[in-house]
Amino acid sequence: MTRNKFGDSKYPVVPGHEIARIVKEIGSNVQRFKVGDHVGVGTFVNSCRDCEYCDEALEIHCLKRAVDTFNAIDVDGTITKGGYSNFIVVHERYCLRIPESYPLASAAPLLCAGITVYTPMMRHKMNQAGKSLGVIGLGGLGHMAVKFGKAFGLNVTVLSTSISKREEALTLLGADKFVISFDHDQMAALAKSLDFIIDTAPGDHPFDPYISLLKTSGVLSCFLAGTITISGSATGGTKGTQEIINFCAARDIHAKIEVIPIQHANEALERLIKSDVQYWFVIDIENSLK
Amino acid sequence: MTRNKFGDSKYPVVPGHEIARIVKEIGSNVQRFKVGDHVGVGTFVNSCRDCEYCDEALEIHCLKRAVDTFNAIDVDGTITKGGYSNFIVVHERYCLRIPESYPLASAAPLLCAGITVYTPMMRHKMNQAGKSLGVIGLGGLGHMAVKFGKAFGLNVTVLSTSISKREEALTLLGADKFVISFDHDQMAALAKSLDFIIDTAPGDHPFDPYISLLKTSGVLSCFLAGTITISGSATGGTKGTQEIINFCAARDIHAKIEVIPIQHANEALERLIKSDVQYWFVIDIENSLK
Repeated sequence: MTRNKFGDSKYPVVPGHEIARIVKEIGSNVQRFKVGDHVGVGTFVNSCRDCEYCDEALEIHCLKRAVDTFNAIDVDGTITKGGYSNFIVVHERYCLRIPESYPLASAAPLLCAGITVYTPMMRHKMNQAGKSLGVIGLGGLGHMAVKFGKAFGLNVTVLSTSISKREEALTLLGADKFVISFDHDQMAALAKSLDFIIDTAPGDHPFDPYISLLKTSGVLSCFLAGTITISGSATGGTKGTQEIINFCAARDIHAKIEVIPIQHANEALERLIKSDVQYWFVIDIENSLK
Repeated sequence: MTRNKFGDSKYPVVPGHEIARIVKEIGSNVQRFKVGDHVGVGTFVNSCRDCEYCDEALEIHCLKRAVDTFNAIDVDGTITKGGYSNFIVVHERYCLRIPESYPLASAAPLLCAGITVYTPMMRHKMNQAGKSLGVIGLGGLGHMAVKFGKAFGLNVTVLSTSISKREEALTLLGADKFVISFDHDQMAALAKSLDFIIDTAPGDHPFDPYISLLKTSGVLSCFLAGTITISGSATGGTKGTQEIINFCAARDIHAKIEVIPIQHANEALERLIKSDVQYWFVIDIENSLK
């Protein structure tokens, strides 16, 4: 197996999980790194490399489970020690390149907190300058969401239960607005104003007060309920409607319909209630409404 | 105001709401249509034309409310009559072009049911051939979801409570699989197998049995709860992690950290429990773990 070896490092690591160091040795088949390179290791050090998630470099969702960097059993039976060790041997696939100009100590938190916040931001296209982002909770994840949000050009509102975090949020992190989330007036003033919300608050808490802050088609991303998405939908606008007409005409797709004269409308309604139609009634106005 | 006028038509309309006809007259400022064109009118006939949703041709979400095609009060005070009328006068903005080769009767259901199904399919990128789609309920919306899904190259499973719909689903609509949604064994066999689910079933029903069918990062789209999205997220894989490292290095973004020697790890853990850290501890292994 192609593996890197990392020797004693001059650089710090994040407790237990993520590691930012300098390559000390490399295996004979290593291609992407050389001794002296700055590299990071994130929350996992192995995966099946064969499933649809590994194929997309989403190894964290590996169908055979990725091997955690800390306190997991690797394929060779050893217990992973994470950053609590003098060195670590990792397959090059699970090593990230860190530019030499970027401090290793700054890189370490990106390997878990950073990517955790970045993943839903990119998935839900939050990198659209001018849009608005609410960040619930100002801790390890939240402060990175604020920083990324500002870097993306978003208007960022911090939603917190601690008035003590106001100064930090506005002055040091550059948030545009700070709102105490249990203050009904402040929350009401934000109603339907946010394109995106990232919920980084720990523990059980209701979604409803935050959902009311979302614009139509807004997205609330949370770290509590797996990675699935539940999304409401209404109907669409003229652009989409023209698209679906063109698509159906080009591909010869037709809804199944039953054409009726308008005199049969009441009967049709009764049948509709009994689900006795496949699948739409279409009224022939021309031939029945003179 | 630039308006089209539609005269008596030779073509049918969908009850009450959506209309597919031929242009009979046009106003002097109409630019996009001429007499004789085949056109459709969807679920709305007016909107503010000035808000962010109208700007994106998502007029259905107009901040001042779109005017429904049927039984609403238009800006001139008249009650809209939808398709239950000999003719309708509509601003050209709200008219869709229907190719002459495509039957008007087929076009009508696209203007509400079609666009309703198409909108979340495109929003959540369901047009990826080879992915899997579950369709809950085989009615007006459901049968179109099956047709669109097959046209997109998806593997389509119909989830229904009516065994009587099996033949229709598999033979006539071309679904790949038909599952009775209250059959635990059939549902268990589908666990974690679907990329997407479109829930077209009417009335209250639990999401949980369907959510268990979704793959990691799967999307369930429903027509019950407005258009907001709630999305869970875990952390990411190597591709995203490399992206965020590069992004932070390029933009000089740094997490706020406190570097400690490993001898202070227990103290750090106690402070962590009290949230007394801004925002991550980073252990300096080299200088403290010899």
